Amino acid sequence: METKLRSGERFDDLQNGYEIIQNPEKFCFGMDAVLLSAFAAVKSGEKVIDLGTGTGIIPLLLRGRTQGCRYAGLEIQEDLADMAARSVRHNRLESEIEIRQGDLREASAIYGRASFDVVICNPPYHAAGRGKGNPDDAKAVSRHEIRCTFSDVARESAKLLRARGRLYLVHRPYRLAEILRILEEERLEPKRMQFVYPYVDREPTLVLLEAVLNGHARLQVEKPLILYESPGVYTDDLQKIYGSH
Amino acid sequence: METKLRSGERFDDLQNGYEIIQNPEKFCFGMDAVLLSAFAAVKSGEKVIDLGTGTGIIPLLLRGRTQGCRYAGLEIQEDLADMAARSVRHNRLESEIEIRQGDLREASAIYGRASFDVVICNPPYHAAGRGKGNPDDAKAVSRHEIRCTFSDVARESAKLLRARGRLYLVHRPYRLAEILRILEEERLEPKRMQFVYPYVDREPTLVLLEAVLNGHARLQVEKPLILYESPGVYTDDLQKIYGSH
Repeated sequence: METKLRSGERFDDLQNGYEIIQNPEKFCFGMDAVLLSAFAAVKSGEKVIDLGTGTGIIPLLLRGRTQGCRYAGLEIQEDLADMAARSVRHNRLESEIEIRQGDLREASAIYGRASFDVVICNPPYHAAGRGKGNPDDAKAVSRHEIRCTFSDVARESAKLLRARGRLYLVHRPYRLAEILRILEEERLEPKRMQFVYPYVDREPTLVLLEAVLNGHARLQVEKPLILYESPGVYTDDLQKIYGSH
Repeated sequence: METKLRSGERFDDLQNGYEIIQNPEKFCFGMDAVLLSAFAAVKSGEKVIDLGTGTGIIPLLLRGRTQGCRYAGLEIQEDLADMAARSVRHNRLESEIEIRQGDLREASAIYGRASFDVVICNPPYHAAGRGKGNPDDAKAVSRHEIRCTFSDVARESAKLLRARGRLYLVHRPYRLAEILRILEEERLEPKRMQFVYPYVDREPTLVLLEAVLNGHARLQVEKPLILYESPGVYTDDLQKIYGSH
């Protein structure tokens, strides 16, 4: 059975044996999703959910690299959820990856409490702002807290995780103090953190975080993840990440 | 008038025109104090206090590099406060630097509320532990929270600072989540943060922080501060710091 593409869509090769359907007019995954999925540790047999999965990039990458037993992806935007579901079928992964269209603010009601070992989320980074944003604009929804806030993500993650389950997320460093505070409010104890610096002499553009539900308070900050040696030239670390999936 | 040294003491040249009295049996300043004083921004005419000043290294470095109008140093350990006061006299800085022996948990009572533009602190990094530590052991007191906790430092800093005053501190990354939470509890909003990595491929050993009393919530994480190119070989950044005071 051949997968049909809708207008504006294309297949992109993920270099891990899978292809993803994307539409540049709507949303294409970025390096953030790749870095987050490489940062996340999924053990054999674990159940994983990706909150706000978009076109399903994170489940597709995790499925290629880890031995989880099941990967769920929840996406509020109907057209993105549809693209993700078609990518799953295209790769014949229906028994491993399940995509649902729905609101992450209701995730624990949809999937049940304490039903996952791992939650992963590449949330919108920025506050919605005064006029809010257009709730039908896929790019705006993925970047701004129009349909959910970070507090929603943390609250639902804490409900979805079994005891000692792990949350992985990526965010902007400028919101770090607030993010750590919200995680602690939900008893999601920050355990591991890595800053992503575009160059060795630049400010970090991203921070990767692992938090453990009801974990002990001791944070491991990892070596810097530096992306480029010079414009266009990946560091060894970034090459390894792109080569590992 | 020649400064007399006590048994075990020596002069160390700070390379900024000043000398400091140290006693290797008791306590010698480390790179932490140098990095913190380089990270701190003191504007012309500002009043500065160093909480737990030890032998007075931070006031002596700041006085060499900044245009503050007055630098106070508070130290609970009598012999260290005495060494600091003698170093100040030795450098003829009595009208710029004032050392007091006293408990930082009473700092706002000693100096008065809202009486400083800048608070700086290189606190003990580690919890006191089960058996506590020896409160007469200078090295133990400087490393473990025997005579004060980080909550004490944050609470007194908030009281000592004028509105919008700045706190500068250095700490261990493993306690970052707790530190940010305690700062926020005292309305000391984290504004600027820099991780100190010994090598480009190692975990950070220190984190430098600037917090602003009643500041807005937006954190600037700075470029990584990497110390060594290879064992014994300073990076340009570290050379600049050592050359700037």
